[in-house]
Amino acid sequence: MSDTSNNDVILDLQRDARIGMPEAVLCTSKTHAQINRAVDQALAANKSILLTHLNEEKAASVTATPFDYDAISQTGITGPWVAPTGTAKVAIVSAGTSDMPIVAEAQRTLAFHGTPSKSFVDVGVAGLWRLLNVRDELAQFPVVIAVAGMEGALFSVLGGLIPSLIIAVPSSVGYGMAREGETALHSALASCAQGLVAVNINNGYGAACAATRILSARSE
Amino acid sequence: MSDTSNNDVILDLQRDARIGMPEAVLCTSKTHAQINRAVDQALAANKSILLTHLNEEKAASVTATPFDYDAISQTGITGPWVAPTGTAKVAIVSAGTSDMPIVAEAQRTLAFHGTPSKSFVDVGVAGLWRLLNVRDELAQFPVVIAVAGMEGALFSVLGGLIPSLIIAVPSSVGYGMAREGETALHSALASCAQGLVAVNINNGYGAACAATRILSARSE
Amino acid sequence: MSDTSNNDVILDLQRDARIGMPEAVLCTSKTHAQINRAVDQALAANKSILLTHLNEEKAASVTATPFDYDAISQTGITGPWVAPTGTAKVAIVSAGTSDMPIVAEAQRTLAFHGTPSKSFVDVGVAGLWRLLNVRDELAQFPVVIAVAGMEGALFSVLGGLIPSLIIAVPSSVGYGMAREGETALHSALASCAQGLVAVNINNGYGAACAATRILSARSE
Amino acid sequence: MSDTSNNDVILDLQRDARIGMPEAVLCTSKTHAQINRAVDQALAANKSILLTHLNEEKAASVTATPFDYDAISQTGITGPWVAPTGTAKVAIVSAGTSDMPIVAEAQRTLAFHGTPSKSFVDVGVAGLWRLLNVRDELAQFPVVIAVAGMEGALFSVLGGLIPSLIIAVPSSVGYGMAREGETALHSALASCAQGLVAVNINNGYGAACAATRILSARSE
Amino acid sequence: MSDTSNNDVILDLQRDARIGMPEAVLCTSKTHAQINRAVDQALAANKSILLTHLNEEKAASVTATPFDYDAISQTGITGPWVAPTGTAKVAIVSAGTSDMPIVAEAQRTLAFHGTPSKSFVDVGVAGLWRLLNVRDELAQFPVVIAVAGMEGALFSVLGGLIPSLIIAVPSSVGYGMAREGETALHSALASCAQGLVAVNINNGYGAACAATRILSARSE
Amino acid sequence: MSDTSNNDVILDLQRDARIGMPEAVLCTSKTHAQINRAVDQALAANKSILLTHLNEEKAASVTATPFDYDAISQTGITGPWVAPTGTAKVAIVSAGTSDMPIVAEAQRTLAFHGTPSKSFVDVGVAGLWRLLNVRDELAQFPVVIAVAGMEGALFSVLGGLIPSLIIAVPSSVGYGMAREGETALHSALASCAQGLVAVNINNGYGAACAATRILSARSE
Amino acid sequence: MSDTSNNDVILDLQRDARIGMPEAVLCTSKTHAQINRAVDQALAANKSILLTHLNEEKAASVTATPFDYDAISQTGITGPWVAPTGTAKVAIVSAGTSDMPIVAEAQRTLAFHGTPSKSFVDVGVAGLWRLLNVRDELAQFPVVIAVAGMEGALFSVLGGLIPSLIIAVPSSVGYGMAREGETALHSALASCAQGLVAVNINNGYGAACAATRILSARSE
Amino acid sequence: MSDTSNNDVILDLQRDARIGMPEAVLCTSKTHAQINRAVDQALAANKSILLTHLNEEKAASVTATPFDYDAISQTGITGPWVAPTGTAKVAIVSAGTSDMPIVAEAQRTLAFHGTPSKSFVDVGVAGLWRLLNVRDELAQFPVVIAVAGMEGALFSVLGGLIPSLIIAVPSSVGYGMAREGETALHSALASCAQGLVAVNINNGYGAACAATRILSARSE
Repeated sequence: MSDTSNNDVILDLQRDARIGMPEAVLCTSKTHAQINRAVDQALAANKSILLTHLNEEKAASVTATPFDYDAISQTGITGPWVAPTGTAKVAIVSAGTSDMPIVAEAQRTLAFHGTPSKSFVDVGVAGLWRLLNVRDELAQFPVVIAVAGMEGALFSVLGGLIPSLIIAVPSSVGYGMAREGETALHSALASCAQGLVAVNINNGYGAACAATRILSARSE
Repeated sequence: MSDTSNNDVILDLQRDARIGMPEAVLCTSKTHAQINRAVDQALAANKSILLTHLNEEKAASVTATPFDYDAISQTGITGPWVAPTGTAKVAIVSAGTSDMPIVAEAQRTLAFHGTPSKSFVDVGVAGLWRLLNVRDELAQFPVVIAVAGMEGALFSVLGGLIPSLIIAVPSSVGYGMAREGETALHSALASCAQGLVAVNINNGYGAACAATRILSARSE
Repeated sequence: MSDTSNNDVILDLQRDARIGMPEAVLCTSKTHAQINRAVDQALAANKSILLTHLNEEKAASVTATPFDYDAISQTGITGPWVAPTGTAKVAIVSAGTSDMPIVAEAQRTLAFHGTPSKSFVDVGVAGLWRLLNVRDELAQFPVVIAVAGMEGALFSVLGGLIPSLIIAVPSSVGYGMAREGETALHSALASCAQGLVAVNINNGYGAACAATRILSARSE
Repeated sequence: MSDTSNNDVILDLQRDARIGMPEAVLCTSKTHAQINRAVDQALAANKSILLTHLNEEKAASVTATPFDYDAISQTGITGPWVAPTGTAKVAIVSAGTSDMPIVAEAQRTLAFHGTPSKSFVDVGVAGLWRLLNVRDELAQFPVVIAVAGMEGALFSVLGGLIPSLIIAVPSSVGYGMAREGETALHSALASCAQGLVAVNINNGYGAACAATRILSARSE
Repeated sequence: MSDTSNNDVILDLQRDARIGMPEAVLCTSKTHAQINRAVDQALAANKSILLTHLNEEKAASVTATPFDYDAISQTGITGPWVAPTGTAKVAIVSAGTSDMPIVAEAQRTLAFHGTPSKSFVDVGVAGLWRLLNVRDELAQFPVVIAVAGMEGALFSVLGGLIPSLIIAVPSSVGYGMAREGETALHSALASCAQGLVAVNINNGYGAACAATRILSARSE
Repeated sequence: MSDTSNNDVILDLQRDARIGMPEAVLCTSKTHAQINRAVDQALAANKSILLTHLNEEKAASVTATPFDYDAISQTGITGPWVAPTGTAKVAIVSAGTSDMPIVAEAQRTLAFHGTPSKSFVDVGVAGLWRLLNVRDELAQFPVVIAVAGMEGALFSVLGGLIPSLIIAVPSSVGYGMAREGETALHSALASCAQGLVAVNINNGYGAACAATRILSARSE
Repeated sequence: MSDTSNNDVILDLQRDARIGMPEAVLCTSKTHAQINRAVDQALAANKSILLTHLNEEKAASVTATPFDYDAISQTGITGPWVAPTGTAKVAIVSAGTSDMPIVAEAQRTLAFHGTPSKSFVDVGVAGLWRLLNVRDELAQFPVVIAVAGMEGALFSVLGGLIPSLIIAVPSSVGYGMAREGETALHSALASCAQGLVAVNINNGYGAACAATRILSARSE
Repeated sequence: MSDTSNNDVILDLQRDARIGMPEAVLCTSKTHAQINRAVDQALAANKSILLTHLNEEKAASVTATPFDYDAISQTGITGPWVAPTGTAKVAIVSAGTSDMPIVAEAQRTLAFHGTPSKSFVDVGVAGLWRLLNVRDELAQFPVVIAVAGMEGALFSVLGGLIPSLIIAVPSSVGYGMAREGETALHSALASCAQGLVAVNINNGYGAACAATRILSARSE
């Protein structure tokens, strides 16, 4: 009756040509077999592939080699990819230490796209001097990814201090009325600082993809 | 069948003795007759009374004299009350010009309670220098009422800069995901700055009452 | 008691130097007098100023001349500003005819920042050919502002078709479960298309400011 | 005091005659004993029965034989039922690989009702060519069940491309503002494509039942 | 700067050929000029056009003749359309008298698509006999559109009584926790009756379009 | 095409016999003609009828005589009904003066059902002595209807003080996080006082109907 | 510093005298030691005590004997209590088999209060005959507790069929838009059937307490 | 590529001088290594440090000695800190026994700040005498921290009885419409008692910090 077990993955291999970045695989709801089918399709086309939201148990099931797995960011990469080197083109700022996994996901995604980045962790506004200390350095980057949970005040303060495009990544750090990241998200969207943009909660991957879109256009 | 038309107002005239402040009358859903019955009960006991959320049409219906009405704060006061003079004991800070009605409600309520205050309007964090300019002065006040709409980042920044008790009053200024003040409220509650407290959206009256509770205890 | 009536507007005149764009004035909750005080502060510093969410009744109260008012976008501009000319640098796409006011607000803001733009209105996905017809032209722009209400499917389809940075502006067009723009916003944030970014509901102004941040960096 | 332990299941055995489909048993909150009592009542009436949301541990407790259990769809069938053969009468489309369990639940339910179906998995709009490739084939089906999580843009695009009745099944695939399927659901309901209908989140069973209602009427 | 005033309407004139129904115009957020431009485009192609959510003030601005306006359903039709006659093919049931405008919108839309229908108004479950009285007649229709506000219990009861496809249209009738139609919508989606489908709140138009999709397939 | 204009009201005239109370007409979304058709059906059956949510403009359109209209409760009664006399059987308590319209709706409904009641208005917990003053009298009533907006603390305090069944009617009095009555409703439902029951926000009518159900059983 | 470990339980032993029922202990967030301290206080006063939300692990830690634990209802009783006998005074109806734990909690609570009850399980409206079969028997009870999850249509249907006071207990049975019981709760509150009352989700205990309040008054 | 593993913690060691209290470490989302890095930074500066939301497994990983861990409050303290002695300066009141962990967190935080406090546990309003018994003692404290879950009626009752500043800490105790503490929070914010202030759900730490701000100002 059901013959779908082997045809349930169709990688969009033309995506790179169309929008400048390959498809990645969000592994949360996928089985070991489905993840490996996606990897196989990419490798068969001689392409590298990025796996996100990949926990250690699923990572262990990936059969391709070599397989570059990073537990902090919960990402894995396989294929002919080589890590980029050189000057950082994107800054990644986080309000707290607990935002580290999202910072790392953004960094890994940028690296997968060939872009070096630099992170500035634990510079939240409750100790404003930490942010003011790095303000001039941050202002040099055309794109700054900012990660913050709780009330996300970092987004607005940053938006008033530097001219860069700031991509707000609300994080689910916090409890109670932090609402799993919704409060930080709403803060970014309703900010008094003009020209902030936001991506989904915890979406370090998406922020990195947006940065890639901007950098691609710049380098044309 | 229904004989309630004349017994539907019972002022709590002992409240002042019990908690240090008299009852005020929230006029939003009350008829002209009900408002005047409340005023009459207060005057009969030789007490002053504060009317809040009193629009101009309802204010015109108040028959007591003299009647001190302020259209910006939508408040009216009648009775033996005399406006306080002297050094301001509470600071009131607002993120934007549009928060003025709430600032004014807090000031009027404090004045009704006999407390002079000082306001600092339009010092939001998108232009951080405005706030830093008044930081040292603000830090001298034991209580600072902070009014902000949109994302309410002012609360967190202030909380990291001064030791005063900061009473956050989220305002309904903004649109979309500002959600009629809910985002600013959630920001105050989920703030990374420790020891912020919040009152209801647009509740300048309540913030002033909280300040009164604190000042009463201090002066004992 | 209250002496705030004349000091409740503090324009952030250094903002242009700091982040590359001047402050604008959101007029929704401001009085005629407050709006004119903001205009006066800008003109006194020989700067142009943009007024947003300015309805016709408030526009009529502005005393500065010449005053360039646009009823569709609910914006007004005064000061030494001159409208830009030349090739469009930003594309603005909308799903439906009803999104026109937001498209116009984005265009006016870009123009205020000196950037010409081009609009593509009523190209929603229910008639997909309309979007495919302009896809190649859109793909040439480094930044595309996309405006859509209802379910906001335009954002995802566009994100899969072109490499540009797409700034999603959810609009409040629709009824019932369109939820005043929240469904379109959530669609942008949860999109299967990688690297979309979003601003607040109906925030054509903010999307234009984000575009300005990107273009400023590009032109360095 | 309580004598309900043996009379807490009353199968609606006349349902088939009344609405053209038998009752199924949602096993989520039921005990092993309750599930077996329901099965026994059906078999005693010589009827087949479908068990849904049946995890492997509960499936192991079912004592009837033969028992056809499918782990992907979390469904079990027992009784005189025979799987249907022949040409597919319903198409089931899914946006992503992760939607497979819901696709399978719909297929199993249709099979239980005697209807063959065909699935098209991983044809989401981020790679639009995948959907356009099968558009003509899909347009031949009177009923298309569409499964999508995240922002559910598939529903609207499909609705603009084919004349079939499209039954949208929002799935809980995604994170953050995907809101466990609510964003996809709201997208279906607020769609710019006319004549879409929706069922509950993850409700592959319900979509299949709706298809059965339509096919029954057609075959009269 | 802005030259969009005359190109902001692009009717999807091929829609009829593609999905079996023409586009309609939702007039809520459109100007008089925009509505008339849409009408003109349809008439120029010799097609009829349906205008929905058209209040009396906007209806008066329509210049095409003859123009068939119905105030109860807030709909207008112009062009070569002729009202259908003959046996009703769709039943429309409503729980209360207050749901009449939505019933009428569905009837008008069906008529615009060439389909006669029959309405059964005020047959809610608080007086169950009213529904049971018409049950046998309703069971003869392949498609039944059910309109209900408040708690929407009508949907579930109907779903257990007849084999037809039931398209639930939640209405915004009610107050408090009826939540402008959300409670009725959630009731339809979470119903214990299998195979119900739902459209947006107050969306009589959408329900009629879904019925049209079904009937088109039936008549092939 | 549409012949529903005269058959859209079907009064459930047997309801009294079935559940001990007649149907009432909620007038919010009904036209003048619909309201009068309902009245006519009741009078034709020689029954009295209660109209609720009837504003003054609609009340003026009622043609039946005599017509007993009460503006505070927004109710009208016509038919052979006679107001009850004698000892009050139900107590109605309200937290504030602003809850008066709901108190009155409950009283009118009880009177329509033949039950005298007694009201205790403005006895909220901020001045607890007001409630304690009437506690012993309230404890004598088998049923107490309690009306409160804002935070609804009255419900819990009352529930801990008296043995009567307490029917909580949350009111929409308040602003901000009072959330149009939802906070008071949630307080009633989550109360630490055991055995409270609640009806919809502002539903004085429903509370009175519940009281009627209890009293009917008692008098059997 | 903290000397609270032994004084954190203060049973309200006078509650029975005040409101006709003793306090019960909600065990969800309590430690073994706290539960046993509550039991000890009750037994020291020679009173019986009811423990609710008591899972099997916590039940095993109760040291009092004899201890009557019921796993289905997650309740335990100790002290001089004797189970009541005789004719049932309250009916408990549930829509589905999965609601059994809540039915059992209500029955146990009533029994603890000395009241026999009778349950009618799995009589939901999708198979309406099941409910109609017991309608006449149900109509004899002055109080009917109705338990339903999903869309809670049972409440409205029952409310239109019988004159008893119906206490709706929404249950968390269902998934997706059943919203953990909120949809059933909203259905009860927004019901078209007049005079329904509701308690908190899954609150079989509270419904039984409300019934006890009614029955106490009846027997005076 | 990523060199952030060792620089992701930047303690704000100047905070004490700036706002009168040191930073604390919220351990929920931090790794063992991150927690120890924070501790090391504090000890290197010869400062004490408070760790909150520290479960037993994480507490066991802390390597500093001596380490004062309290399992009830989930807090740990290390460094030169000495527990304060003397008269309590803050009262902490809780509605129920289940609120004990939050009471303890507040007490520990106050102690860390050098302030003795006194707790009054299980004095909820369902047994009002428990609260009235301690009212006079509570009224002597300038600051009272009140902890309550469910409907949070304690806040309003307390606010009407004593003149102290009352800091409401909503707790997540309760189920269903207690909504994990949101109902208690909304009750505090929408209270009819004037001058209540609130902190985040379960935020005993924040309430203590607010008390410290007030006490610091008092002692100046």
